Amino acid sequence: MSAPSVHPIGVAVLGLGNVGTEVVRILQENAGDLEARVGAPIVLRGIAVRTLGDRGVAEELLTTDPHSLVARDDVDIVVEVFGGIEPAKELMLSALNAGKSVVTANKALLADYTGELAEAAENHRADLYFEAAVAGAIPVVRPLMQSLAGDRVDRVIGIVNGTTNFILSAMDSTGADYSETLAEAGRLGYAEADPTADVEGYDAASKAAILASLAFHTRVTAADVYREGISSITADDLATARALDCTVKLLALCERVLGEDGQERISVRVYPALVPLSHPLASVSGAFNAIVVEAKAAGRLMFYGQGAGGAPTASAVMGDLVMAARNKVFGGRGPADSTYAKLPIAPMGDTPTRYHVNMQVSDRAGVLSAVAAEFAKFDVSISTVRQEGAGEHARLVVVTHRATDSALAATVKSLSSLEFVNDVTSVLRLEGTSE
Amino acid sequence: MSAPSVHPIGVAVLGLGNVGTEVVRILQENAGDLEARVGAPIVLRGIAVRTLGDRGVAEELLTTDPHSLVARDDVDIVVEVFGGIEPAKELMLSALNAGKSVVTANKALLADYTGELAEAAENHRADLYFEAAVAGAIPVVRPLMQSLAGDRVDRVIGIVNGTTNFILSAMDSTGADYSETLAEAGRLGYAEADPTADVEGYDAASKAAILASLAFHTRVTAADVYREGISSITADDLATARALDCTVKLLALCERVLGEDGQERISVRVYPALVPLSHPLASVSGAFNAIVVEAKAAGRLMFYGQGAGGAPTASAVMGDLVMAARNKVFGGRGPADSTYAKLPIAPMGDTPTRYHVNMQVSDRAGVLSAVAAEFAKFDVSISTVRQEGAGEHARLVVVTHRATDSALAATVKSLSSLEFVNDVTSVLRLEGTSE
Repeated sequence: MSAPSVHPIGVAVLGLGNVGTEVVRILQENAGDLEARVGAPIVLRGIAVRTLGDRGVAEELLTTDPHSLVARDDVDIVVEVFGGIEPAKELMLSALNAGKSVVTANKALLADYTGELAEAAENHRADLYFEAAVAGAIPVVRPLMQSLAGDRVDRVIGIVNGTTNFILSAMDSTGADYSETLAEAGRLGYAEADPTADVEGYDAASKAAILASLAFHTRVTAADVYREGISSITADDLATARALDCTVKLLALCERVLGEDGQERISVRVYPALVPLSHPLASVSGAFNAIVVEAKAAGRLMFYGQGAGGAPTASAVMGDLVMAARNKVFGGRGPADSTYAKLPIAPMGDTPTRYHVNMQVSDRAGVLSAVAAEFAKFDVSISTVRQEGAGEHARLVVVTHRATDSALAATVKSLSSLEFVNDVTSVLRLEGTSE
Repeated sequence: MSAPSVHPIGVAVLGLGNVGTEVVRILQENAGDLEARVGAPIVLRGIAVRTLGDRGVAEELLTTDPHSLVARDDVDIVVEVFGGIEPAKELMLSALNAGKSVVTANKALLADYTGELAEAAENHRADLYFEAAVAGAIPVVRPLMQSLAGDRVDRVIGIVNGTTNFILSAMDSTGADYSETLAEAGRLGYAEADPTADVEGYDAASKAAILASLAFHTRVTAADVYREGISSITADDLATARALDCTVKLLALCERVLGEDGQERISVRVYPALVPLSHPLASVSGAFNAIVVEAKAAGRLMFYGQGAGGAPTASAVMGDLVMAARNKVFGGRGPADSTYAKLPIAPMGDTPTRYHVNMQVSDRAGVLSAVAAEFAKFDVSISTVRQEGAGEHARLVVVTHRATDSALAATVKSLSSLEFVNDVTSVLRLEGTSE
């Protein structure tokens, strides 16, 4: 060993919920292993909680004053698992400004304020680590930031929200409708009392912003992410998906998009989409998460595991903590995200997607050709058309080739106004196909 | 930026095969991106080749004298993609001893000499990075070394050799026999002219040694790995597997094993085994690789992608190169492997496994109970027995619970000697089951 410091590394943990409790447990149970891996003892200096009381840890470790805890001279690293924006942000900034490293799982905060936090870390040579903020235990932040640092990432597609994946998987296997399945997910502990952040895609959008920032070396915030949730997905949509050898997944998509002006932009979006059963993401079911990364030299990589929960998230926090502690012992600083590329965000309307359109039509000659003409009018090329049923129940199912989202939306709007189209019953995007 | 050095980082590339050619291409084509990510230009100082000539790169970069190239004052990082033991090892040691960082894809060398190389890196505060040595583009070295640094890894199971996975997948889908499929793999470029290193499991054993070292913080060399290849796998074995809702995969297994003496040991082994179709590794087909890591807090993680080939391997090399260069610019050193745990290696005989045994038996009363008694004699608990056929074609198919490999081997030997057991037609280990 090249004369490592023997000073212990002091850690403050902010928050004692599911993740904080697991972090504290690992710190205490694995102290010997952690010391051997870091090269110095890691010592828990204190835990900030909102209210004191019996929390299953030594009482003298607890404090309701996180500011004083972070400011202690013997605290070198702050683990932030409070969640929410304030006081988390203020505490993290004050730690970083004092040269203390920060490990956080706070995706909502990172999606909006990574710039400010990263700048403070850079200026004071501290580490800002956040592996736990995306997909829990699954290592994806570090692979994007380090392993693929010499490659060019073209696309990231992920299932990054366990609640919605649990609901969509259950709808797929039971045939039940959305509201019924959401209620069941709540009973089983897979959905929160207020499920809005999950089911409306806000949580996935935060993670998409973080993934896109890392993948494309560009600062992306949650406001840059186009977002649709799963609350309008019906049992019929899942049935349609099955008929097409597909399933429906809430996807976080980050892609490079080349505009007609030759300018490279990035598209970052979250929405439920049809995914072919042959795609590796289709078999990711229940509360699991998975992320597919497509890079120029590496090809397609997939990372799979538990995306949430106290222990899996704590595993990611602890990996970051050991690395930050090691940097404190040996000097230096881990790699930070880089945002030199500053690629512009493509408007959703300019983003190339594929649509699957299901409509009830009048059963008479010429309908198919009239519908096809409508797609052609908007320059949308059709991949397949299927006519089903007859009489009142006649349906047309159209799957398009890739076109801009605005051309597709305009086509659908125009179809609805046609006299022989009785109803456009569903419109779903299709992702994960080779075309 | 905290006043980064603007000195360029000089790189020497040793070897210009598939991987070296891709590394040189990326260095030249992506120079601007790489400079932005590193904080300084990365400059290719030279490429060591065995013979000069038109290699598609500027002639003045080529040299047949790797020692002088490595020794150049303006070389900061050495990328070793020669392969083989010498001169690669000597060159890497001379680089590390001069404080130059080394990035390598050389699994055979690492499996035997990581100790010596890591010590030189440590003493001279240089980086020794080798993400490309295991499973090509798939980030697994860095996740094990960093992301899981605060967790406890219990088991690593991987498909880490593309040639054997291609052969076994093809045997499964075509029903063809081993030698025929090997020949076809050779024709398609998936097997080398001398396929021994792949088909006999030597390549997988090198990778298993590296994975086990990282997972268990213990120095494991190729000699510690129990190894069987796939050359004795037959079309019948694949048919048997299908009948059991399994397939056959060449697995690299690294596990913690608790001995009867209460001592924790590690078992590192490579062999073909039955894998249930429901296991995530069963669907990894063709030349793809995948690695499942089971850790106490993280649960089960899977990493999937291209395990070989010039471009995917170069992606991993480039990630390491960017990180090593960044460390040169900003000071400090990346995390190294740690071997503090020094766990002993469990002998194969003491390792708990499951067996699937297929035997031809005399079709008469009492055979089943006599066979069951034979298993009981060696303390091997039976999971299922199936009797098939009748008369001359009567067969018993036994699947055991977990028992030590030596007890299972002794049972099979003893069965063969029983008068009413005509032939033990196949013995396959079973992995990836929950029991």
